[in-house]
Amino acid sequence: MSEQSKYTMGEDRIPHAWYNIAADLPAPPPPVLHPGHGGPIGPADLSPLFPMALIGQEVSTERHIEIPKPVRDIYRMWRPTPLYRAHGLEKALGTTARIFYKYEGVSPAGSHKPNTAVAQAFYNKQEGVTKLSTETGAGQWGSSLAFAGALFGLEVKVYMVRVSYQQKPYRRALMETYGAKCVASPSEETESGRAILAAHPDSPGSLGIAISEAVEIAAKSPDTKYALGSVLNHVLLHQTVIGIEAIEQMEQADAYPDVVIACAGGGSNFAGIAFPFIGKKLRDKKDVRVIAVEPAACPSLTRGIYAFDFGDTAHLTPLVKMHTLGSEFIPPGFHAGGLRYHGMSPLVSHCKELGLIEARAYHQNPCFEAGVLFARTEGIVPAPEPTHAVAACIEEALRCKETGEEKVILTALCGHGLLDLPAYGGYVAGQLHDYELPELAIENALAKLPAGV
Amino acid sequence: MSEQSKYTMGEDRIPHAWYNIAADLPAPPPPVLHPGHGGPIGPADLSPLFPMALIGQEVSTERHIEIPKPVRDIYRMWRPTPLYRAHGLEKALGTTARIFYKYEGVSPAGSHKPNTAVAQAFYNKQEGVTKLSTETGAGQWGSSLAFAGALFGLEVKVYMVRVSYQQKPYRRALMETYGAKCVASPSEETESGRAILAAHPDSPGSLGIAISEAVEIAAKSPDTKYALGSVLNHVLLHQTVIGIEAIEQMEQADAYPDVVIACAGGGSNFAGIAFPFIGKKLRDKKDVRVIAVEPAACPSLTRGIYAFDFGDTAHLTPLVKMHTLGSEFIPPGFHAGGLRYHGMSPLVSHCKELGLIEARAYHQNPCFEAGVLFARTEGIVPAPEPTHAVAACIEEALRCKETGEEKVILTALCGHGLLDLPAYGGYVAGQLHDYELPELAIENALAKLPAGV
Repeated sequence: MSEQSKYTMGEDRIPHAWYNIAADLPAPPPPVLHPGHGGPIGPADLSPLFPMALIGQEVSTERHIEIPKPVRDIYRMWRPTPLYRAHGLEKALGTTARIFYKYEGVSPAGSHKPNTAVAQAFYNKQEGVTKLSTETGAGQWGSSLAFAGALFGLEVKVYMVRVSYQQKPYRRALMETYGAKCVASPSEETESGRAILAAHPDSPGSLGIAISEAVEIAAKSPDTKYALGSVLNHVLLHQTVIGIEAIEQMEQADAYPDVVIACAGGGSNFAGIAFPFIGKKLRDKKDVRVIAVEPAACPSLTRGIYAFDFGDTAHLTPLVKMHTLGSEFIPPGFHAGGLRYHGMSPLVSHCKELGLIEARAYHQNPCFEAGVLFARTEGIVPAPEPTHAVAACIEEALRCKETGEEKVILTALCGHGLLDLPAYGGYVAGQLHDYELPELAIENALAKLPAGV
Repeated sequence: MSEQSKYTMGEDRIPHAWYNIAADLPAPPPPVLHPGHGGPIGPADLSPLFPMALIGQEVSTERHIEIPKPVRDIYRMWRPTPLYRAHGLEKALGTTARIFYKYEGVSPAGSHKPNTAVAQAFYNKQEGVTKLSTETGAGQWGSSLAFAGALFGLEVKVYMVRVSYQQKPYRRALMETYGAKCVASPSEETESGRAILAAHPDSPGSLGIAISEAVEIAAKSPDTKYALGSVLNHVLLHQTVIGIEAIEQMEQADAYPDVVIACAGGGSNFAGIAFPFIGKKLRDKKDVRVIAVEPAACPSLTRGIYAFDFGDTAHLTPLVKMHTLGSEFIPPGFHAGGLRYHGMSPLVSHCKELGLIEARAYHQNPCFEAGVLFARTEGIVPAPEPTHAVAACIEEALRCKETGEEKVILTALCGHGLLDLPAYGGYVAGQLHDYELPELAIENALAKLPAGV
């Protein structure tokens, strides 16, 4: 630890604007389609769900979008987040590569999610909204929105995937401590939930079902809007503070990444660190490889198809073109709850189609192995999601060790694993079984993609 | 949140020396006595348990003790920690007081404990020790020593109070993820443990028993030393980085505390923030009230007596003069595991006797009420231990509201509550019963204090 290992900045270096990659892409992303008539949707179609400011951000092509002062004031609680040089990990690997990680686990909710939760709560509050509904899987997003809701005085209702609701009482307690209401999904509160329960009384739930419930409640309640924790353009936009800060901190470290690696579930953490670097590549020809890492159990980018699909199970959301496994795909049980979505952010998918990013997939247990090595050498226990990125960093660093290359690797450590410790405990005790993806799971789900779009 | 609320400093402001209050006290603390012959102990008596560098710190009267560079290098992972102005809490209370809190939850283990764990691991490593043994109650200390042990390549064995071992699998998993071995105490591994199990096969364990086991193992193993997470002078010394940084950050805020409030279990968090301010009071006549807050279920400072007592149940430790409830006192079940020790740091007790500090005690549920208000207004869920200090801050702030005084209140938020969320969940669901301290519990335990010293 004797070399420089942490790059911090003063609060004056919190970005004043988010970065919108739509301004720099060589081709615009495909339109979003109405779930009813199939034509492109307009702002009015989205207004029951989102405040106009966020709808505006969703379609904006402005390169820089100003961060409102009240949002920056709350960002100051934990931003700028530190960038670390992983000297301990490098030494353990004996690599010639330099590994850097941007750590978002210092936020009060323990992940990158508050970057957008605070912004969404602000814009809703500004437009007079008093209640927000949302879904959550493992609970990172739900607890972040609960945190933001508490600070802005908004009621927050979270539909939490039933199996997580039962297995993750810590996350539920965190949401309730912040004052949010947390309901197991599928619930009896919505038509979508009741329909699922009628067919499958013991349904463990899924993100797709929980999204249907939260969207339905918002669509039917004039005082309630919906908030989503990933996938959408405005959510990814808010996360770009990560990459904007990282660019400046890499300058402090007198280095520029040869490769940027991040895990991707819905895509917001990945886009948060990667888009500002892709933007520099597009504008300034600063070359960089960008790798999205996903779980082999939910491999939308690596095994899904690029097609129009629904974001939810009950097909209440618009149709977006994305890499998808089909909205009926239910992944096998694995611990990285933030990586269990059947689709991928349309913007990230579009970048993949444009050849701007690569993707690879890893199994669960090698990721926990990487996470344990990281904890023991760097002192921070990563959330299960970013262990996927850590595993990929280690693979790259070991390749450099073989070739003698002195590559600079940058990753996003998007959250700590303190609320995921039972999974680590199982892993170190040798009791964590890796999953198997059933042979036809993907094929069967893809066969049910919406036709004719 | 629009006013200045966070006071940060660059890494160059991490203190270069710890502050040793022994240099400034108007009277020296009483001697430490040998458990066998009853006379004062010398360095040789302690050398089976501690490296000489720490024994030297234990008896030093130098005001400033240099922090070794490798320790400061690791401190840089999370230090200097932020000082926050609690604007949200102040607003909710409508107080005229200004409340500041120094937040130690940003450390990788989530509390102030790594400040001394890293130092202890360093000095042991320096003297060729390869293994450390320790005890832990709720697990904050055990996980911090596991963290430090991983970074210095030391084997760490943690005797964890059995009831916590069973009830807190997250903490145990955290220690094991860092590579430590965690054993439920009382165990079959030690004479102390076997003696307890012979008499009480279902013993839930206690901190006093776990200390006996860890001390016994260290005393019997030439390659193993013992590490304690609180109580001793050198442990308190290492925590003074908290108060030293806070003094400088309060200057940034253009304020000086009228009152410093911190929770006290063994006393290390309390001393960490308070001693540097008491030192200024003694040297520079900077007046300040200092209040230690403890749980009504384990009230050593407010209801114990000031007497020579053992630090552990099996009476293997030296005798120290402290406020104690008797080494056989077992507190009723409550969630602030870090505040369950039967005694109090001799240095903190000595300050109490010298009239330098006050003490008060609170019941559990009002503390959780304070913790929930804090979480919803400040965004951070406090560990159950510092909710005691938060409750006292609120009481002071509400008194200011009545009188119109504009007092400056400073407290130490020594850790986050993310691994204590089930207790919060129970509280917000109205299911957390407050404890009752059995009528004669304290009297019966005090009756068994060692005689003749």
